[in-house]
Amino acid sequence: MKAQLGGDEGKHKFVLKTPKGTRDYSPKQMAIRERVFDAIITCFKRHGAEVIDTPVFELKETLTGKYGEDSKLIYDLKDQGGELLSLRYDLTVPFARYLAMNKITNIKRYHIAKVYRRDNPAMTRGRYREFYQCDFDIAGQFDPMIPDAECLKIVHEILSDLQLGDFLIKVNDRRILDGMFAVCGVPDSKFRTICSSVDKLDKMPWEEVRSEMVGEKGLSPEAADRIGDYVQLHENDHVGEPVSVGSVAGGGRYDGLVGMFDPKGRKVPCVGVSIGIERIFSILEQRVEASEEKIRTTETQVLVASAQKKLLEERLKLVAELWDAGIKAEVLYKKNPKLLNQLQYCEETGIPLVAIVGEQELKDGVIKLRVVATREEVNIRRESLVEEIRMRTSRP
Amino acid sequence: MKAQLGGDEGKHKFVLKTPKGTRDYSPKQMAIRERVFDAIITCFKRHGAEVIDTPVFELKETLTGKYGEDSKLIYDLKDQGGELLSLRYDLTVPFARYLAMNKITNIKRYHIAKVYRRDNPAMTRGRYREFYQCDFDIAGQFDPMIPDAECLKIVHEILSDLQLGDFLIKVNDRRILDGMFAVCGVPDSKFRTICSSVDKLDKMPWEEVRSEMVGEKGLSPEAADRIGDYVQLHENDHVGEPVSVGSVAGGGRYDGLVGMFDPKGRKVPCVGVSIGIERIFSILEQRVEASEEKIRTTETQVLVASAQKKLLEERLKLVAELWDAGIKAEVLYKKNPKLLNQLQYCEETGIPLVAIVGEQELKDGVIKLRVVATREEVNIRRESLVEEIRMRTSRP
Repeated sequence: MKAQLGGDEGKHKFVLKTPKGTRDYSPKQMAIRERVFDAIITCFKRHGAEVIDTPVFELKETLTGKYGEDSKLIYDLKDQGGELLSLRYDLTVPFARYLAMNKITNIKRYHIAKVYRRDNPAMTRGRYREFYQCDFDIAGQFDPMIPDAECLKIVHEILSDLQLGDFLIKVNDRRILDGMFAVCGVPDSKFRTICSSVDKLDKMPWEEVRSEMVGEKGLSPEAADRIGDYVQLHENDHVGEPVSVGSVAGGGRYDGLVGMFDPKGRKVPCVGVSIGIERIFSILEQRVEASEEKIRTTETQVLVASAQKKLLEERLKLVAELWDAGIKAEVLYKKNPKLLNQLQYCEETGIPLVAIVGEQELKDGVIKLRVVATREEVNIRRESLVEEIRMRTSRP
Repeated sequence: MKAQLGGDEGKHKFVLKTPKGTRDYSPKQMAIRERVFDAIITCFKRHGAEVIDTPVFELKETLTGKYGEDSKLIYDLKDQGGELLSLRYDLTVPFARYLAMNKITNIKRYHIAKVYRRDNPAMTRGRYREFYQCDFDIAGQFDPMIPDAECLKIVHEILSDLQLGDFLIKVNDRRILDGMFAVCGVPDSKFRTICSSVDKLDKMPWEEVRSEMVGEKGLSPEAADRIGDYVQLHENDHVGEPVSVGSVAGGGRYDGLVGMFDPKGRKVPCVGVSIGIERIFSILEQRVEASEEKIRTTETQVLVASAQKKLLEERLKLVAELWDAGIKAEVLYKKNPKLLNQLQYCEETGIPLVAIVGEQELKDGVIKLRVVATREEVNIRRESLVEEIRMRTSRP
């Protein structure tokens, strides 16, 4: 019962903020977000993907041993009695758990949901602690490289669709890195941890990564320098690369993960991609700001208004008629609103039409329909109003 | 990098389950869920609501003092250094925090998201620890009862739309309960806690509620019995009520809540409703099971197939053409799939058309299009294929 919430007792004052690394989405931001989701979901559906959903938290042990050093970034829930829980860190591990739990050996699915990482946020660059992942994965035993190719196709389609400008899709194979490490003299026991250092080259300069390898991780300076030679090669590759916004998608094969959950270790080969919408969203949001494009945050087709007083009931009656006919309509929550205020509301919110109820018009069985942009006004028979509004607000 | 996840090392075995009170949604369940969301969102948009989103967790202090006794049901996050956080318990308090934080005095918004309560789950009856709320709220100073009436209209429209059968909307005013308590001799200090006991009458018989009032909450037996008289009246009201599935929506005014967040205590009157989709979803899911209606979980229009071997590249080329034209298309991930298997896949998943690539047809510049339901086959010129598929799969 909401009525209980609003007690006036005890006006405690709080720090008014969202938790570190998180944000609210305003209606305008939601409108942009919806566009991005729409492009992504349309693509996933075009490729025949089903959709699933999983809980926002998992048993802690479900996540244990899946993320190596990054485990420290997992949000745990407080032990309040009962199971130990953690917020999901990505959508891949819950997906693998879902497959093993339901003995599914074959599925092409997408999943769009928020994931949680206690990372250092850099919100201006679109790095958050709560952020969306849009995952598309293909699980099952298939002929080599066909599902992998479809994943690349999907990234290409989505990034093209969103018109973000030029992009580069990098394809690699872990075994190349393994070979490189072997040649550089990295001991087997350090492959994983050195691999995670190399991953940081996207965000850190080589010198910092090198000192992490040698200092924190105990790699010999010689091995580190040999890795450095390869890294330098890689950097030369990208001289002349345009200003980068960083990675907006990633993915790969994870053929062993489902087997880690299956009691008999049965494997289900998987491949997938994850689109990170936060950076994409940042780019689009800045673009919208710069263009001064006016984004509508509602789809209202018509405001039901009145020019005279005492017509509240008539307005409510008409707006209910319109709702019942599926027209998106609003009415101001005032007994006797001024016509000017009603027209102003339309200007501000982009409502294209006003249906004006008047005493004479009611007697005549007509409604005055006003086009906000042109100020044109026509009397429409009440029984034709719905059709007229539909016609005038249908998109070309 | 997903490549890191799938290590074959260390096959730990886990309890394969979702946390207590939570569940996964399978593709079929998602299809039903989407229908429900669609009806609800359509209604909210019809009424001109904007949409916002807030983080899944809030600062713990944001939730403190808002839920009375129910506070014990809040999920807290573990203190891992930094801020103390809790999962949101509803969408109302985050909304009020959002309004105060952004100094918004006037908005009509909806918010559909999961909320979290460490309650005793009864999942067969649609009671979960992680569940969706679909909230519509109107904030602002308006003439009395107009926004309130729209909230009722919305509940009526949504429940009618979903065709759940007859429903009863109960309207009450907290002040009636306050008056009743005063008459029954409940001391002011116990109003809140006794109010929360009365709330439980939906789930518990009067005798249990009475013993909670007297035993746990120290109300005098006489006062409890006088309340009982009113409750009995209430029950007589509903003799003959059909088998109930319980409450699927609730709402009310909370004029004081935003003021609790505002540094100067400035109030923003609010009224809203919350639709609980879990019970609705349970009802619809059971109905679908009973009807044996076949629910498609994808929207794929056509499968690109081949009858002969060595046509993988040609299949991939064609399916890419279709994707680029916006056709929802799939291809089996096999080098040389059997035609029978490809047709079977269409039968199982409800794909209505098969575009069959053949060597002779490729030479002739045509594709064989097969209608799965009728087995009819026609050769279509490749450049007309997209149009033909669109025509044959457009909904009437």
